[in-house]
Amino acid sequence: MGGLLVPGALRADGLLDDAALVRAMLSVEVAWTRALHETGGATAAQAEAVAGAVAGWTPVLDPADVEDAGNPVLPLVTALRDRVADPGAATVVHTGLTSQDVLDTALQLLARAALGRIRADLGRTAAALARLAREHRSTPMAGRTLTQHAVPVTFGLTAAQWLAAILDAAGRLDAVRREQPVQCGGAAGTLARAGAVVADPVATAAAFARQLGLRWPGLPWHTRRAPVTRLGDALTETCDALGVFAADVLTLGRPEIGEVAEGAVTGRGRSSAMPHKRNPVLGVLVNAAALQAPPLAAQLHLAATRAVDQRPDGAWHAEWPALRRLLELTVVAAAQAAELAGGLRVNDDAMRRRAETAGDPAESTGVSGSLVDEVLRRYEEGRDDDA
Amino acid sequence: MGGLLVPGALRADGLLDDAALVRAMLSVEVAWTRALHETGGATAAQAEAVAGAVAGWTPVLDPADVEDAGNPVLPLVTALRDRVADPGAATVVHTGLTSQDVLDTALQLLARAALGRIRADLGRTAAALARLAREHRSTPMAGRTLTQHAVPVTFGLTAAQWLAAILDAAGRLDAVRREQPVQCGGAAGTLARAGAVVADPVATAAAFARQLGLRWPGLPWHTRRAPVTRLGDALTETCDALGVFAADVLTLGRPEIGEVAEGAVTGRGRSSAMPHKRNPVLGVLVNAAALQAPPLAAQLHLAATRAVDQRPDGAWHAEWPALRRLLELTVVAAAQAAELAGGLRVNDDAMRRRAETAGDPAESTGVSGSLVDEVLRRYEEGRDDDA
Amino acid sequence: MGGLLVPGALRADGLLDDAALVRAMLSVEVAWTRALHETGGATAAQAEAVAGAVAGWTPVLDPADVEDAGNPVLPLVTALRDRVADPGAATVVHTGLTSQDVLDTALQLLARAALGRIRADLGRTAAALARLAREHRSTPMAGRTLTQHAVPVTFGLTAAQWLAAILDAAGRLDAVRREQPVQCGGAAGTLARAGAVVADPVATAAAFARQLGLRWPGLPWHTRRAPVTRLGDALTETCDALGVFAADVLTLGRPEIGEVAEGAVTGRGRSSAMPHKRNPVLGVLVNAAALQAPPLAAQLHLAATRAVDQRPDGAWHAEWPALRRLLELTVVAAAQAAELAGGLRVNDDAMRRRAETAGDPAESTGVSGSLVDEVLRRYEEGRDDDA
Amino acid sequence: MGGLLVPGALRADGLLDDAALVRAMLSVEVAWTRALHETGGATAAQAEAVAGAVAGWTPVLDPADVEDAGNPVLPLVTALRDRVADPGAATVVHTGLTSQDVLDTALQLLARAALGRIRADLGRTAAALARLAREHRSTPMAGRTLTQHAVPVTFGLTAAQWLAAILDAAGRLDAVRREQPVQCGGAAGTLARAGAVVADPVATAAAFARQLGLRWPGLPWHTRRAPVTRLGDALTETCDALGVFAADVLTLGRPEIGEVAEGAVTGRGRSSAMPHKRNPVLGVLVNAAALQAPPLAAQLHLAATRAVDQRPDGAWHAEWPALRRLLELTVVAAAQAAELAGGLRVNDDAMRRRAETAGDPAESTGVSGSLVDEVLRRYEEGRDDDA
Repeated sequence: MGGLLVPGALRADGLLDDAALVRAMLSVEVAWTRALHETGGATAAQAEAVAGAVAGWTPVLDPADVEDAGNPVLPLVTALRDRVADPGAATVVHTGLTSQDVLDTALQLLARAALGRIRADLGRTAAALARLAREHRSTPMAGRTLTQHAVPVTFGLTAAQWLAAILDAAGRLDAVRREQPVQCGGAAGTLARAGAVVADPVATAAAFARQLGLRWPGLPWHTRRAPVTRLGDALTETCDALGVFAADVLTLGRPEIGEVAEGAVTGRGRSSAMPHKRNPVLGVLVNAAALQAPPLAAQLHLAATRAVDQRPDGAWHAEWPALRRLLELTVVAAAQAAELAGGLRVNDDAMRRRAETAGDPAESTGVSGSLVDEVLRRYEEGRDDDA
Repeated sequence: MGGLLVPGALRADGLLDDAALVRAMLSVEVAWTRALHETGGATAAQAEAVAGAVAGWTPVLDPADVEDAGNPVLPLVTALRDRVADPGAATVVHTGLTSQDVLDTALQLLARAALGRIRADLGRTAAALARLAREHRSTPMAGRTLTQHAVPVTFGLTAAQWLAAILDAAGRLDAVRREQPVQCGGAAGTLARAGAVVADPVATAAAFARQLGLRWPGLPWHTRRAPVTRLGDALTETCDALGVFAADVLTLGRPEIGEVAEGAVTGRGRSSAMPHKRNPVLGVLVNAAALQAPPLAAQLHLAATRAVDQRPDGAWHAEWPALRRLLELTVVAAAQAAELAGGLRVNDDAMRRRAETAGDPAESTGVSGSLVDEVLRRYEEGRDDDA
Repeated sequence: MGGLLVPGALRADGLLDDAALVRAMLSVEVAWTRALHETGGATAAQAEAVAGAVAGWTPVLDPADVEDAGNPVLPLVTALRDRVADPGAATVVHTGLTSQDVLDTALQLLARAALGRIRADLGRTAAALARLAREHRSTPMAGRTLTQHAVPVTFGLTAAQWLAAILDAAGRLDAVRREQPVQCGGAAGTLARAGAVVADPVATAAAFARQLGLRWPGLPWHTRRAPVTRLGDALTETCDALGVFAADVLTLGRPEIGEVAEGAVTGRGRSSAMPHKRNPVLGVLVNAAALQAPPLAAQLHLAATRAVDQRPDGAWHAEWPALRRLLELTVVAAAQAAELAGGLRVNDDAMRRRAETAGDPAESTGVSGSLVDEVLRRYEEGRDDDA
Repeated sequence: MGGLLVPGALRADGLLDDAALVRAMLSVEVAWTRALHETGGATAAQAEAVAGAVAGWTPVLDPADVEDAGNPVLPLVTALRDRVADPGAATVVHTGLTSQDVLDTALQLLARAALGRIRADLGRTAAALARLAREHRSTPMAGRTLTQHAVPVTFGLTAAQWLAAILDAAGRLDAVRREQPVQCGGAAGTLARAGAVVADPVATAAAFARQLGLRWPGLPWHTRRAPVTRLGDALTETCDALGVFAADVLTLGRPEIGEVAEGAVTGRGRSSAMPHKRNPVLGVLVNAAALQAPPLAAQLHLAATRAVDQRPDGAWHAEWPALRRLLELTVVAAAQAAELAGGLRVNDDAMRRRAETAGDPAESTGVSGSLVDEVLRRYEEGRDDDA
């Protein structure tokens, strides 16, 4: 993961790293043995032997084995079979699955955890922006178009637009979360091997999904990558929204403008060259995140176009680092944006003074107030839906 | 538009070119004057004077004026005002709108026309693939994973997977179509100028949307570009699906494999160097399209992250060529793919022979049949929805 | 090409459009027949019959034929053979070439013309920036880092940094220009067919290159696309440099900062909604261009990775629209930037006042002066090289 | 770094991780104090106190401090100053530098190490391909264009084309290596603070470069990012070349074609679902790498376009993860490709048989032999240059 070159990486700590991935893959294997049991392909004892073997265990895989296999699943399965004492249970492990079933599903589990975190932070950002929109419903502010002063707006409307973008993105993330699928197809997507141990492998796949709280989409998606690209698109839409917010805050916080400022936090934003300077660190980092999402989403689509044959020759592998990085990026940016929004300081005097140079704001901010109300209405309705 | 460097560009003829754009912008201006009339900001005579002036008129704008204005709207508005004989009606033209309102909305109109064409062609592709899936429900075929033979599958399942990807993409395109918005905010997104001529500018915006058969999303989206990025994402998902289909057809049509072939069309696929060779032109062109969509979608997201201030300083301009190109690309690829799917020739003997080398297909294609049925069920349901 | 959605497209008029492409392809065919003649594969009369047939002729190709062939070369060759009255000469046309030889070489010719235009405009930009750097060698200005005021700099150094980036990019463009190759390999890159009519096809290839003023790189590059990706990388580096310049000008021209302003030009920068506003159109358009180059360069590299077999199944086709668009983008942006640089108005009082709030500029602008001199020295040396 | 989701990541072990970065940053700080000493800004004892403090020390930085500072430099400088016992020496540490000077230079050091590794592996690949080109100079093989059989070629020419692409890329990497610069500008790029402790800060910058074996480019490049984008472009050109090689090997290794095969290595390429299958793991992984480079290079250019002000507000931060990932990607892919090339098994009987179906190869492979010789000549010349 990003480490020192991703300031704020600690905000995703433990969520997406190799240990989390290993645990997710083990959960997938356990869920599969339970699904086999539910549908007649394994005994209860076998399923529980596998579950027991996994409890509290996070093996470290040999990177050479990972390269030899081309992915981390085979080494993990080998280790798991070794660990399961009962030979019958050991045989049941992974029976009927292929590597891609395990890794795709495990990545959906990591994504689910990340999406939960992102949504919570978008909720915090939305709450802060809703407060700003409400408080500054009538605070006039210079409208700026193509960098020049246009007719006045209100800061409430500005905040409401930031908020509306967050609500849009949150809606799309939620849609993706509701549709998160298990991957389940076996070697070539026909569930043939599973069919040797259960009567109805489709029922096993459905049970597998229930075990994990994911959706069984009716057939495998080894080569139809919309579950991955839609996730990437929604994360990118989220970063787009956060990035506009951050970029606007950076502009409005330029010393010559001075209409907003990032909240002061002891020790934050110091410069290595200028001790008295304070850098708007959160704004800068969120702004930087927004610049990074589009190429990562493009990577996922590009891989999706090359998902050939029954399982492809590299396109699948090309997804993994981009997907994990995009998840990390969004988790970190969402957390930073929530803190930025929560701490934002507003200089309404500066706003008002500048708006007045552009005419009489009282007469010229149009229907800003009712547009703010419309966004706040959407926000409140969404909160009810969440509750 | 693409011209000679976009083989197949004729399939989008008249749909997205400058003349279509000018006509769409004029429709937007007419719809706005009618909406003003509906809500008390113009007389019926004024609205009809504007509509009348536009009938059968497609002005050619001076490119120098377009550059001076930074976009084609101002020159068009100037020309339209000149053309409207009645001075009162001329004054009403564009009153309360800003350039971005007109161009964003006009591009939605172009997109709607393109989406209609794309959906029709996806429908043709889906019908052809459904037929193949049904006919070859039990035709065994070698499964191929990481380029090597895996356990057998059926050609029916292969076709069903192509079909399922088309259905996924079509669903997303439909969702985008249902949500297509008008843009309406005036100079800085407050509808202030409109408020000088109508009592309730939000009602005017809603009427504007109704006039055009688009949606009024409750507030302007000058700086929230999800309507553009979601369109781009859905088009790219479509190209992803078409690209996998084309790439598989190209592989299966390699002379050493020879399991499918592109339908022969007189005069198509000739080589300038080898008179007797036949190139799989449609497959190649659709495959090429799929490689082009992801960077274009990334362009739209990238612009979306820079949609700052009340209206941005270049990010909006950066969307236009990419959006138009992505629409053209998808229209052309969808049409070519429909023809490819409709004409596909299947060599089931070759499939069967090769599958047999991998074991007894009768025993080993798993639940391919029921997976095919699942996709056909989805396909039939979708057709009912369309009807 | 871009048309109404590329404000400023007129600056590339006639350089890159379909007519220019057709003329370039005809030049390639003429050069090839002359090269055949030089090396014993055609008579002088045949070569001149082909050259004569082409003079003043720009055929319009049928788009349906272009699609059927998958590219515009075959229809053009057919039309050319029809036009050449002498049957022997008609037979000589295109003998030994493949479509890719013609189109790749023709695109190099278009690129050469575009590079010439871009370089001239970079020269104008450089001259203007050198003048600013010299005049404002000691004009203090607030340094800005992470949006906040840092220690003072000079405007001369700011201009010198813009200039240095232009010089870097120009150097890379020149390197690309010097290496521009012909493509010449025949059907599968072995020059086999040419070998049937000349004794030494490699000599013919070298003569072909001389005819066109391009380089014969020793072997065909049908599947080694560095000549295309390096061109794309250099164009993108150019747009990067222009974009930083434009973005800085936009920031420094915000009304609250007001340290520079775009030169006023009658009729330019008007707003459709606010008659008295003036938009910094050139800055906005150059800024927009910079946002568009990176995905186009990525497209070229992406295609390069898929340049498989002896000639690929779509990757080559995927290059064309991106390459032409990237050339157009850079031609237009370079011209706009030259005008922007030439007309830039500097408010050194505003700069000085603001720099003083950050300390005593006289004591704190470091070695700005000698850094400016270093860049001016590079600039002057480069001018000598050009002369 | 990539961990389990980058099979083969172990091939970059220790080269690019956080510990390597910390050590590189410490080397930069040591070099700077030595440069200060050389030019009169520090005593020898101070410089050596700093060097001594660093020996064998790789501190682990607190991620919370990294986020607060926005980058890892400030926490490292703080830790280093604490560690240097002598107060005078502690004060000298970092004096006159800014965070970007240290991190940009440290990343150049990491890049240099990675480039060294990549070049060595390209050398191994080139040697193997040269051997294949020589051995199979006359081995006929079906030419394949747009997936269909064209006229015959030789396998020697195919290998020579792969080799030529490697030589092209290696040349570009070498050019980048020769130009690798130090970053040195201080807070706002004027070297003002350094000027308070040395008479000629430009001389200090030059000494700094000599200490590190890098180039002093005459002025800082905080906002001119060509040193980063050119590195990215060259790495991507390398991956393009490796990717074409891998993709061709994968196609030629399809069971229906069977003209080449990846060398067998015990334990490699096993499938988790099909024990007897062998996957072409190296080819798949190199192919996957090629699909990942273009979006990363685009990321670097995109950041370069936003390198505004004296130091930018996020664009710089957006470079880091992409640059590190692109370096890792290329190091790993180059190593895997070297192994792939070295172990490649060639079935020349299969090649010959298939070529014969397309005509008499003896008469129709054109000048393949002399094209092979041309590439081998380039290869041998390059080896002499290296020696």
